[in-house]
Amino acid sequence: MAKEKLSIVKIGGNIIEDSNALDAFLQLFSKLEGKKILVHGGGKRATGVAAKLGIESKMVNGRRITDADTLEVITMVYGGLVNKNIVAKLQALSIDAIGLTGADVNSITSDKRPVKEIDFGFVGDVKAVAHNSIDKLIQADFTPVFCAITHDGNGQLLNTNADTITSQVAVGMSEVYETSIYYCFELNGVLEDINDKNSVIKHIDSKLYTELLEKGIIADGMLPKLENCFDALNNGVSKINMGNTSMLTQENDNFTTITL
Amino acid sequence: MAKEKLSIVKIGGNIIEDSNALDAFLQLFSKLEGKKILVHGGGKRATGVAAKLGIESKMVNGRRITDADTLEVITMVYGGLVNKNIVAKLQALSIDAIGLTGADVNSITSDKRPVKEIDFGFVGDVKAVAHNSIDKLIQADFTPVFCAITHDGNGQLLNTNADTITSQVAVGMSEVYETSIYYCFELNGVLEDINDKNSVIKHIDSKLYTELLEKGIIADGMLPKLENCFDALNNGVSKINMGNTSMLTQENDNFTTITL
Repeated sequence: MAKEKLSIVKIGGNIIEDSNALDAFLQLFSKLEGKKILVHGGGKRATGVAAKLGIESKMVNGRRITDADTLEVITMVYGGLVNKNIVAKLQALSIDAIGLTGADVNSITSDKRPVKEIDFGFVGDVKAVAHNSIDKLIQADFTPVFCAITHDGNGQLLNTNADTITSQVAVGMSEVYETSIYYCFELNGVLEDINDKNSVIKHIDSKLYTELLEKGIIADGMLPKLENCFDALNNGVSKINMGNTSMLTQENDNFTTITL
Repeated sequence: MAKEKLSIVKIGGNIIEDSNALDAFLQLFSKLEGKKILVHGGGKRATGVAAKLGIESKMVNGRRITDADTLEVITMVYGGLVNKNIVAKLQALSIDAIGLTGADVNSITSDKRPVKEIDFGFVGDVKAVAHNSIDKLIQADFTPVFCAITHDGNGQLLNTNADTITSQVAVGMSEVYETSIYYCFELNGVLEDINDKNSVIKHIDSKLYTELLEKGIIADGMLPKLENCFDALNNGVSKINMGNTSMLTQENDNFTTITL
């Protein structure tokens, strides 16, 4: 029997920062057909609140060091301010949303990242996704909205990369559903020429991916994203779409679709 | 057929402020038998974060005026920091908790309080409790943990009194369950002599309540609480207990039970 479809949509900080862009996105998301999950980060907002509280945001190689004070800010901003406002806005659009961290219904457990050269602090690497518990919510017709926080199962919340949460939740839910990921970001898709925003590569499969890598066409920032995508596809995810939020509509086909 | 039992437990700021007291309470709560719901406020913590952010906490007659900035702080502190840490701690105690505002699963809608002599700002008076949606979570073996935030259904979060949320959720759930409320607070119970903390009145029913009112024995702060209790009892709640957290154990019977 064919599995039912489930879409997992991820939005980044650029949409969350801009309340008009967020409202427009939530409209599109509310109209997306079928069962769905939303995942969001909220990085810049946290940096702003941290600064107001006199907490310095320490970044190493573009990654946030999460000390105890910073974790409190992230819990407040991602888990409270951003998540609950998104839930309230989705309810106003008749989507029966439920806001979650990985601690809620024990949905996503992680291990605190081991200290090597760098101590990232309270940062978690995803260990397990409780797809049955998440599915209970979906089966009850609720739409899960995950923020970028997980827990270690021993009472400790952990800051966790939202892209990783997206792919791991999608992989977990692939046990039960035919899953598609939508990564919404600033670009129109994976670009053949980084200086031409319209040079979208519409379809990437394993063969083209290898060719693109050999030709050095995939830019630095895109490399880990695509690696992450093929990892998810190799673990059960059916399809991954990357582009701006208008890819959620039927009208725009100018984005990148990635399959095995 | 007899209805199944459901306990609704409310903790106040004094427990949330003190991490040892909170841990001890969560241990007791985790051992409480049967289906259950937790409701928490978090007032002082919000005042502290607001002060650090340079937001003045305005109180009128002991009630917080919730302007837009204050609502953001409350959403961060109640909905994020306090709620998600309680959920993570309960998960560590093998309670499959799920943290909620009234916006999540559209569980509690409210009306923004009309402006009369005082403009309370973004404060909500409870309008409806979606007992079926909350029950879907309970039937899925999750333990709801509510913070003191509701929504108006049009995308607006609203700060809402935690005692009121407790009694309104209990009244709503009485459609399906035999409900008991546990109000955990600083006192051992309703006191016959406000200066003697051991003068607990163990059982109050409608008849004794009338007598106590006539004799002027019930102190000022307790009056609205008891009024609220009898209102809940008259609307389907079976039993209300007031005392310190040790009333959740079988060992302590020195607290007040209120019935019709």
